[in-house]
Amino acid sequence: METMGRHVISELWGCDFDKLNDVVGIEKTFVDAALKSGAEIREVAFHKFAPQGVSGVVIISESHLTIHSFPEHGYASIDVYTCGDLDPNIAANYIADALGAETRETVEIPRGMGPVQVKANSEAKAL
Amino acid sequence: METMGRHVISELWGCDFDKLNDVVGIEKTFVDAALKSGAEIREVAFHKFAPQGVSGVVIISESHLTIHSFPEHGYASIDVYTCGDLDPNIAANYIADALGAETRETVEIPRGMGPVQVKANSEAKAL
Repeated sequence: METMGRHVISELWGCDFDKLNDVVGIEKTFVDAALKSGAEIREVAFHKFAPQGVSGVVIISESHLTIHSFPEHGYASIDVYTCGDLDPNIAANYIADALGAETRETVEIPRGMGPVQVKANSEAKAL
Repeated sequence: METMGRHVISELWGCDFDKLNDVVGIEKTFVDAALKSGAEIREVAFHKFAPQGVSGVVIISESHLTIHSFPEHGYASIDVYTCGDLDPNIAANYIADALGAETRETVEIPRGMGPVQVKANSEAKAL
């Protein structure tokens, strides 16, 4: 298996409080995001914090998707890391839409290619 | 809860084949790494691939640790993401030592602080 991968780090702001605090809804969103991107799901683990917030991961054959949500700040911290021919932006965009993010900032980092590099085209989009 | 976090991306090369293919050993290493850094463990999920390779995650109250290993390439792709006062480098260094990495390359990315930034002090260390 090739080591090369694409890791999208996505910072979502202005998300809906209730969506960020709904562990069942977030797990479904992440499973759907993985499937829409063509990934094969291996493990799913989500956790609801008190008084609020959700953390979770979907391990896929092609790497992983994670979230840490902070409903009180409207903030969700997203990682989508894929190997092979998958495009991590498909899942990242699906998640941002599902959580109602007003602002999304993303960086894509190539993985498994030797020295770590970060693409210069970091973007901050106000939707 | 504060949104600020520290995300260490660690690319390990020249690791021992058997260590990278040992799902039980890797899970123990990751649990130990989380505990040594002072984290509170919430979820643990690891998966062994055929013919080789391990993926897994430890969800902690303070975010997560993940691995994707490629034993045939001596490569392990590590993420250690912590919030609060924890230092992600404690866990990342412990993992690199445990997997016998000859070369480790790390980048630390601040999370939850607004626009994504990447520190310039990316480092490649030949051990």
